[in-house]
Amino acid sequence: MANAVPMVELWRGELLESTHQGHAVICNGQGEITAAWGDPGRVIFPRSSCKMLQALPLVESGAADAVGLTPAQLALSCASHQGAALHVGAVRDWLTGLGLAESDLRCGSHEPYDRAERDRLIRAEEGPCQYHNNCSGKHAGFLTYSRHIKAGPEYVDPDHPLQRAIRAAFEEVTGETSPGFGIDGCSAPNFATTVAGLARAMGWFAAARETGDARARAAHRLTRAMAQFPDFVAGEGRACTELMRAMEGRVALKTGAEAVFVAILPEQDLGIALKIEDGSTRASEAAIVGLLVHLGVLDPDHPAARKRLNAVQRNWRGMETGIVKLAPGFL
Amino acid sequence: MANAVPMVELWRGELLESTHQGHAVICNGQGEITAAWGDPGRVIFPRSSCKMLQALPLVESGAADAVGLTPAQLALSCASHQGAALHVGAVRDWLTGLGLAESDLRCGSHEPYDRAERDRLIRAEEGPCQYHNNCSGKHAGFLTYSRHIKAGPEYVDPDHPLQRAIRAAFEEVTGETSPGFGIDGCSAPNFATTVAGLARAMGWFAAARETGDARARAAHRLTRAMAQFPDFVAGEGRACTELMRAMEGRVALKTGAEAVFVAILPEQDLGIALKIEDGSTRASEAAIVGLLVHLGVLDPDHPAARKRLNAVQRNWRGMETGIVKLAPGFL
Repeated sequence: MANAVPMVELWRGELLESTHQGHAVICNGQGEITAAWGDPGRVIFPRSSCKMLQALPLVESGAADAVGLTPAQLALSCASHQGAALHVGAVRDWLTGLGLAESDLRCGSHEPYDRAERDRLIRAEEGPCQYHNNCSGKHAGFLTYSRHIKAGPEYVDPDHPLQRAIRAAFEEVTGETSPGFGIDGCSAPNFATTVAGLARAMGWFAAARETGDARARAAHRLTRAMAQFPDFVAGEGRACTELMRAMEGRVALKTGAEAVFVAILPEQDLGIALKIEDGSTRASEAAIVGLLVHLGVLDPDHPAARKRLNAVQRNWRGMETGIVKLAPGFL
Repeated sequence: MANAVPMVELWRGELLESTHQGHAVICNGQGEITAAWGDPGRVIFPRSSCKMLQALPLVESGAADAVGLTPAQLALSCASHQGAALHVGAVRDWLTGLGLAESDLRCGSHEPYDRAERDRLIRAEEGPCQYHNNCSGKHAGFLTYSRHIKAGPEYVDPDHPLQRAIRAAFEEVTGETSPGFGIDGCSAPNFATTVAGLARAMGWFAAARETGDARARAAHRLTRAMAQFPDFVAGEGRACTELMRAMEGRVALKTGAEAVFVAILPEQDLGIALKIEDGSTRASEAAIVGLLVHLGVLDPDHPAARKRLNAVQRNWRGMETGIVKLAPGFL
């Protein structure tokens, strides 16, 4: 098994402070690996980076169209949103429109990442609700599918028909039998695959067209929805949103916990998957920026890119303290 | 140069999700390395883990006694506190007692880590002030020394007499000429040394007694103050505070940003320094717990230890998702 390779470095003054190693694979639409770093066979949990795979049954079954989901709602079904008023309101309206309620969700509650909404809750002496969970859009999609097929309410149970449908789609598009699953932060099963398997899935998404079969058409719609509604996929200030805006709808991006990042590049017929061994998001964001610049689809001087790679670090008084850059030899 | 070695793993379900590598050294009071993992010669920034070194001039100069600093204030001078009411009030009282003000600090402001104080500020629509900075106790010590020697107000300037005194003390007790410095989050210079140098300094602190010279007596007082006032060194829920309480005053501990951790064990005449390559605090906390258990000074089943090593991870709904454990072969 190959080892992880150095990908990202944090320098302070003239000295190397911290280093990050990882694995990355680029696949084309035929599932062929066109470039790889580290160990393509490293088995990983994609975590939230595979939300567009988890949304395939919602779209290909016709459940999404049966209730008239909009592209913004499809983007939200693939989101790790930050619980801003925009996201909370959209999920609430979605469920209310289906005759469902917050209590039907099974994602749990956590304080929203969005500062304004967090402060509003604190001032109102309100706790967060399940709508604030970063995965509530995915769960709204889960509930929509589950209601469509008239399945039971415990939709995060690994034996629930929804999760079986997700596993089948996941294994087909990764081209691998999943070696197992873990329970994600939002309580849904998260199926494992290799970095190569995840990249293969992203390459397949990149190649999916409106003229394909039901699954391919679903993938095409989800990719377009994500790229066209980047504010619904994450939120203001976040990597996925800012970088998708910077690439003006040409690329769909998704981060996952523990430093996974994926990209779908339909114009290049390429998909990317990467995992930083140590789970550090600052490194996965810097590495995906590096790879997108390497492939010529992102301007390295765009503020959204600069913020994450070759980013000057400043302290509380605005003094320069260091810089985040790519490790020598990576790219 | 030796490589970092695997130290900590995060498992999800039955699969390895993320891994952390690092360097660790144990030194005795004579500066001899008694055990090492990874590269003892890795040059690091100790960050906040060297606050007891930065407090040496304050005590050995007589500045602390000239204004009657208490052991709790000495602990605060070595703290990365969480800006709770306890800490903010203590720093305010300290400076006010010296005829100084918040505006004399040069640490900058950031939102306090303490949840109750954070929420109080938000409800009051107040921004944080410099007292909330986790380093404000260290800076109160800096101001106390600077006032004592009648030096200028820009005490974080690397050429200020305070910083020159810190560098001299730092180089003596690490036994190394520092290869340079970086600017820390709080704007103070942070002098670099090797992991072995930092461990040597911790061994020297462990061996320091009341019967030694002025520097050794200062080290002895600072170690005792930290171990006896753990709530002033960090705060409720934090690793340094909870683990020092668990060891009932027998060991002084200090964390530093980018995953540095040190320990001073006077009864064993040993000091520990460790650095996780990727800067992850969850890993430095797990690794220091592992080393303290390994040396027989911490009960692995104490809740403060269990919270950080062999800790079952749970999601927002309380479901078990995984575990943090030591890498095979480390300890």
